[in-house]
Amino acid sequence: MVYQMNSGMTEDKVVVPSLKLRRVGIDTYKENVAYLHRDCPIYRSEGFQALSKIEIHIVSNGAPVIALLNVVDDDCITGLDELGLSEQVFRQLDKPEGTEVFISHATPPTSLQSVHLKIAGERLSYEQYLTIIQDIVDSRYSKIEIAAFLVGCAETGMEREEVLSLTRAMVNTGEKLDWGEHQVSDKHCIGGIPGNRTTMLVVPIVAAHGMLMPKTSSRAITSPAGTADTMEVLADVDHPQQKLRDILQKERAFIVWGGTAQLAPADDILIAVERPLSMDSSGQMVASILSKKIAAGATHLLIDIPVGPTAKIRNSSDALKLRKLFEYVGDKMGLHTEVVLTDGTQPIGRGVGPVLETMDIMKVLENAPDAPIDLREKALQLAGRIIEFDFDVRGGQGYVIARDIVESGRALAKMNAIIDAQGRNLTPLTLGKLHHDVIAPKSGIVTSIDNLRIASIARLAGAPLDSGAGVYLHKKRDERVQKGDTLFTIYAEFNADFNFAITAAEQEDGYQIDTDGATNE
Amino acid sequence: MVYQMNSGMTEDKVVVPSLKLRRVGIDTYKENVAYLHRDCPIYRSEGFQALSKIEIHIVSNGAPVIALLNVVDDDCITGLDELGLSEQVFRQLDKPEGTEVFISHATPPTSLQSVHLKIAGERLSYEQYLTIIQDIVDSRYSKIEIAAFLVGCAETGMEREEVLSLTRAMVNTGEKLDWGEHQVSDKHCIGGIPGNRTTMLVVPIVAAHGMLMPKTSSRAITSPAGTADTMEVLADVDHPQQKLRDILQKERAFIVWGGTAQLAPADDILIAVERPLSMDSSGQMVASILSKKIAAGATHLLIDIPVGPTAKIRNSSDALKLRKLFEYVGDKMGLHTEVVLTDGTQPIGRGVGPVLETMDIMKVLENAPDAPIDLREKALQLAGRIIEFDFDVRGGQGYVIARDIVESGRALAKMNAIIDAQGRNLTPLTLGKLHHDVIAPKSGIVTSIDNLRIASIARLAGAPLDSGAGVYLHKKRDERVQKGDTLFTIYAEFNADFNFAITAAEQEDGYQIDTDGATNE
Repeated sequence: MVYQMNSGMTEDKVVVPSLKLRRVGIDTYKENVAYLHRDCPIYRSEGFQALSKIEIHIVSNGAPVIALLNVVDDDCITGLDELGLSEQVFRQLDKPEGTEVFISHATPPTSLQSVHLKIAGERLSYEQYLTIIQDIVDSRYSKIEIAAFLVGCAETGMEREEVLSLTRAMVNTGEKLDWGEHQVSDKHCIGGIPGNRTTMLVVPIVAAHGMLMPKTSSRAITSPAGTADTMEVLADVDHPQQKLRDILQKERAFIVWGGTAQLAPADDILIAVERPLSMDSSGQMVASILSKKIAAGATHLLIDIPVGPTAKIRNSSDALKLRKLFEYVGDKMGLHTEVVLTDGTQPIGRGVGPVLETMDIMKVLENAPDAPIDLREKALQLAGRIIEFDFDVRGGQGYVIARDIVESGRALAKMNAIIDAQGRNLTPLTLGKLHHDVIAPKSGIVTSIDNLRIASIARLAGAPLDSGAGVYLHKKRDERVQKGDTLFTIYAEFNADFNFAITAAEQEDGYQIDTDGATNE
Repeated sequence: MVYQMNSGMTEDKVVVPSLKLRRVGIDTYKENVAYLHRDCPIYRSEGFQALSKIEIHIVSNGAPVIALLNVVDDDCITGLDELGLSEQVFRQLDKPEGTEVFISHATPPTSLQSVHLKIAGERLSYEQYLTIIQDIVDSRYSKIEIAAFLVGCAETGMEREEVLSLTRAMVNTGEKLDWGEHQVSDKHCIGGIPGNRTTMLVVPIVAAHGMLMPKTSSRAITSPAGTADTMEVLADVDHPQQKLRDILQKERAFIVWGGTAQLAPADDILIAVERPLSMDSSGQMVASILSKKIAAGATHLLIDIPVGPTAKIRNSSDALKLRKLFEYVGDKMGLHTEVVLTDGTQPIGRGVGPVLETMDIMKVLENAPDAPIDLREKALQLAGRIIEFDFDVRGGQGYVIARDIVESGRALAKMNAIIDAQGRNLTPLTLGKLHHDVIAPKSGIVTSIDNLRIASIARLAGAPLDSGAGVYLHKKRDERVQKGDTLFTIYAEFNADFNFAITAAEQEDGYQIDTDGATNE
């Protein structure tokens, strides 16, 4: 059978016989890959090449699906008359194995012309960003085309008007949640500070005040714990939309994993390329964060930017620029956005890793005497700022209200209600069975703790995959230590991880201790 | 068994149990891909992610091989205790199936820092380009990292000193041929003009003059024919090094495919990303061409830059800039480089496609009365310029010498000797069995012929894969046509291709015909 394409036909497309769909059990993450046998007549006659892009058509279905071609020499993977599809494409096409499909050379997306203009240093319009982002969402861009777009945006820098256009394009190419209330609060930290799990305190405090705060969080990718990983120690974090609405109606808040929703879907695709490239332009960061929040239905947003020598933002000048950009784009998008610059000079709290952080959080909620003061203070301040989004609260009163909510036990009660609504995890909190104390090599005062080093040691110990693994900091900045005191304890579940974390800590523990003229050495 | 890495160990690497090597019959072109089963204990415990980069280690072998990870759900592709490798990686690792290997997270190549500097607009040194290119040659860069490098270079533009550094780095990271003579001539056309097969005339003319001209050529990728495709109609073009040296000693020249040699290997890797991105910065073009020629042992090089509205270079200002860049880098690299700007306003010769172009070439060599004049003239001029590389030839005399060589039949004799030395293809020249005349819709004078359109129609007809497919131009620019005259004939082997090429020609045949006030309409 021969299939003549009748829409969007160009001279680069060819008439091809059909192939039978086959699912190939390979997960190619966010890149669509199709497999064609080297001896398949179509491969030879049509001049397809490995790594070229093809369009996959089904007769009854209009829009083709784009995939990268890999060539197969093994009938067990893809036969002569078959088109193999990686899990991603197979899901996207959503047809049974054996379905007749047709392939053609994919024409490059026309929006690539805009990418070339951006690379040449030109300013792009909202319409141009929209077509680029729509093509990216429709899987029409390969990884390298996405990389070209990102580098093009990073290099000449985007004007703030362009960041706004990009944000709007990312919102408008996905779903948008509506929680049915005129005020929906959210918070976001740009990350980089171990133990900084304020969200799990802010949400119950704000909800106890009666404000709506549906919180979707991410899992850790390069850090020792994400809010979703930590909340998962206490409760189920993966729920369908309807369940979320039920929880919200009852408790005014939830803390769940935001991974599956189609909110600003371009964001995940862009991040999958940004991360391996270590790209972190402020334009992309602002568009990424704000588009997700707007799509998630937020109307009021508090952004936490930690500043410190080992934080993501290293000085107040960079912090100020970033703050202005957040405010500009947020305002134009109709999202009430406030930005706070916070202390990012050391980890927050004492625990780093899902279980250890959960223990810190519960101590604060329970008003325990050994609750970490810095975590509590920061959470109260952030919660206070969000409470001031409430029209009835005077400016400056939020902190006191937040403190009352914690001290009265109402925050703990709300947290327990949220946990029960999401489904309490009945397994008790368990630390990794292996532990090792890292000792102060000399006496003096702790003058700094390296966020990156502590995060790295906690990850090596197994966090976040092993929820009980991580690091517990006995000493924080400005505290006095004696030689032989324990600086921090490493917890791990598995020997290999444990030894690796210890070795790393022995090489460099991240603590700076200044002797103070005393003779304790 | 557990393997503790002892060299280059960083905190991001982990201790892992071994896996058994397995060849997976998938061709991933110039990207290394490794396959790990989703339920493999290493996948889960070490936090590997699909599309993350891993290092593959063999105990007895120092340098690890880098690959992109795909996750497999099918034991038939890769079992629980196996590490699957795509054909590329398997060849690169060069160990039998079942060999014990270890994997670890790949640390990003340190030269990526230089790429980020380039993206930020800084000028890079030779040493920085060298480490980038060496890492690229060692497969340490993913496609997206290569794309970031290319876009970074394109956007801010490279200074000519940087193009020199890049060229030198590309030469110094591969093999370099030495033909044992002090003068080795070569030519190169930047491409884009259908039918422009002057190489197959220039080489026998220059060799008949006694000069050494070992010519390695490429196959067509986006054009209807490359020199290697066209020469293959007449002779075998794929030979081992020693055979090439034998041919050269006897005949002073050959025309072969250059695909397999490890000459400036970074070039092929960069091109594999540039092409799908449609990137064509002049810096990359100059570095790509000159590095290949220098690595191939050339001492004297003639560059052909066709200029015309549908050529790669569209105006003389761009041509001049490109010429200066070729001259600057060539001179600094010790390669005698001359650049000629040629007429690129229409296809050269009459045939477009391997067999059709071969027929044009043989007519010129045989001094046939219907030999295409423009192809003959251009070849004589280019050959003349190369003959003037000979110290004993006065400036301006090259053309006459070249013409004598053709008219005397010595060029034909030399071509036949080269063909015989390479192994004559005894199959007679055969045109595609299907043919269709494209007719002038009105009378007048042909004022332009679109290179891109003619190339596209010839490719649709099946060139270069079907060597007899293509287009034969009966009318060229400035010729008078009557309504109903044949402008060109399409040749094809297969019905589908044939119909597609005809449809494309009916939509737009690429000919501009201006009526001249006469009443022939």
